[in-house]
Amino acid sequence: MYSYQSLFNFTRSVFETIGLAKEEAREAADILMRAELRNISTHGLMRLPEYISLWKNKRITVRPNYSIVHETPSTALVDGGKGLGLVTAPKAMRLAIQKAKAAGTGWVAVRNSYHFGIAGYYAMMALENDMIGITMTNANPLVAPTFGLNGMLGTNPVAVAVPAGKQPPFVADFATAPVARGKLDILEEKGKNAPEGLLQDKNGSPVNKAGILKEGGSLLTLGGDVEHGGHKGFCLTAIVDILSAVLPGANFGPTVVPTLGYVKDKTGGEDKGIGHFFGAVRIDAFQTAEAFKDYMDQWIETFRNAETIPGEDRVIIPGDPERLSEKEKMENGIELSVQTLEKLRKIAGELKVPFF
Amino acid sequence: MYSYQSLFNFTRSVFETIGLAKEEAREAADILMRAELRNISTHGLMRLPEYISLWKNKRITVRPNYSIVHETPSTALVDGGKGLGLVTAPKAMRLAIQKAKAAGTGWVAVRNSYHFGIAGYYAMMALENDMIGITMTNANPLVAPTFGLNGMLGTNPVAVAVPAGKQPPFVADFATAPVARGKLDILEEKGKNAPEGLLQDKNGSPVNKAGILKEGGSLLTLGGDVEHGGHKGFCLTAIVDILSAVLPGANFGPTVVPTLGYVKDKTGGEDKGIGHFFGAVRIDAFQTAEAFKDYMDQWIETFRNAETIPGEDRVIIPGDPERLSEKEKMENGIELSVQTLEKLRKIAGELKVPFF
Repeated sequence: MYSYQSLFNFTRSVFETIGLAKEEAREAADILMRAELRNISTHGLMRLPEYISLWKNKRITVRPNYSIVHETPSTALVDGGKGLGLVTAPKAMRLAIQKAKAAGTGWVAVRNSYHFGIAGYYAMMALENDMIGITMTNANPLVAPTFGLNGMLGTNPVAVAVPAGKQPPFVADFATAPVARGKLDILEEKGKNAPEGLLQDKNGSPVNKAGILKEGGSLLTLGGDVEHGGHKGFCLTAIVDILSAVLPGANFGPTVVPTLGYVKDKTGGEDKGIGHFFGAVRIDAFQTAEAFKDYMDQWIETFRNAETIPGEDRVIIPGDPERLSEKEKMENGIELSVQTLEKLRKIAGELKVPFF
Repeated sequence: MYSYQSLFNFTRSVFETIGLAKEEAREAADILMRAELRNISTHGLMRLPEYISLWKNKRITVRPNYSIVHETPSTALVDGGKGLGLVTAPKAMRLAIQKAKAAGTGWVAVRNSYHFGIAGYYAMMALENDMIGITMTNANPLVAPTFGLNGMLGTNPVAVAVPAGKQPPFVADFATAPVARGKLDILEEKGKNAPEGLLQDKNGSPVNKAGILKEGGSLLTLGGDVEHGGHKGFCLTAIVDILSAVLPGANFGPTVVPTLGYVKDKTGGEDKGIGHFFGAVRIDAFQTAEAFKDYMDQWIETFRNAETIPGEDRVIIPGDPERLSEKEKMENGIELSVQTLEKLRKIAGELKVPFF
């Protein structure tokens, strides 16, 4: 168990040491630590080695030239200048919020960016402004389109945060694939199989080997086969790819420059980074924030108190488990896997950053 | 087989006879017929008896007082005045498009409305304006939240239409539940079972009986159980309910006044209708429409030409089968089921509208 503060300090030092500006290093560390606190460890410190590797390979710039390429009252196109997503994304979301203040809603599409941690972090930035926050991103191509043989789409997450009144906010933050890549990595580390119906091998045959992505296999879309609505999952993941990458002009689908050694590079050399899409929707651009929050409380209470199937306690409101986890880990500390600890210790040694 | 024109004329006459204004009757008929042409017969003439029944029971107003309750440069809240969705929705989408022209994007949330046919119709209205169109709606509560016993959410469809250049547009139009209610009705009519893993009975046990919704059963969310990502499907369907119904102040989730005899009324008497959410996103609020359309062509071509799993011809681009169907049915005519024909004949008799 490690305290939040010691891990945060370490992470901030790592980002400062590779050259991020002081405030950007703080914010990037805050985003990764928020993933740890929210028990989304697949997007926490486990990812730090990937970021360092992007930096070593000169794939990212630590002092990026962030620029607004084009804008209208409710939109902007941002070029992240090949910065880390952890640096570019909070700025872009702040811009969306600023636009929403003036125009009712704000929508910012970003290109030339990289992995930005948990999508939910940015969606939640809208909450304190009485806005609904929306975040999407594309990612390494690992998900096969319906009937497709190869991974061509990312696990492309969507996050939506909705303010409430007496109730805590609704915060949905989910990969649009049935399972996140990081979760497969964890199963593999533990020597466990994945559930049936989620994966196919490089020949398109169904498999449950958690490490199959490293052998040319791919994830199916949410829903699985067509009988179970998998084509709807394809639609959803495709929409995220189009809004996040085609709209801003980032690398889309299979042309994303992989950050994973085992994913084939199909870019033909052109790297416009991955893309993100951020939205901020001012509640009182529709009805008063007070009336909405009362009504949203009713929504949350109705679902939280719903009758359950035998053997289950309750219907879980999106965001509830993560909020409880934040409180618990802030008090009791954060656990890291042996594998992650080892990688972090190596980074500490290389960068001469004091280990926690 | 019936010609497009004869069915269109019949449908328009029915709407005119119950009292819709001439232009509104034309547009409502166009929306239903577009569903028939696009081979989404679950949202075509099969639904006409439901609309007539809403009218007979005075649940809808044929000359509704459509009003804009509140607006900002990029948003509006519309009260549909208890009109048919087929009347209110096209107006609301036109308003979203008008807002987008001035502010870059337009977002209109609607309350006091009813079933609006295929979501894709409205999303596609954006295309000719070089905009991305987005549509959502809530609906009769038939989908159980993850771990929930009862249907509390609609099959809540999402449609997203994206313009392209040389390629036809990308048009995704899908119920966020693994299968639409109308598809289960068709299986039931044919005496067939539903696939495993989509349905539960009133005790929460898995079943494959297509008619189970009529016996207190419910649909699972997209993904099915938690192992297969069903909680992500819950998030998705919940987000549609919140944007479509909580945001405008329509009846949400289980409080939707059912239009289906077999769904329990849990409204407590308050009827603010169902709600819709419309978005229009001007492409050139981000980059030039020309550059985007070229890039979108690349996206479509990349996926259309993707390698497939054994036994499958191609990766299907959302909107392709529907577009081909429109052409085919416009030329060769439209088939109706015996059950639908019988119901339409009954309506023709009651309203003294000439049958086709």
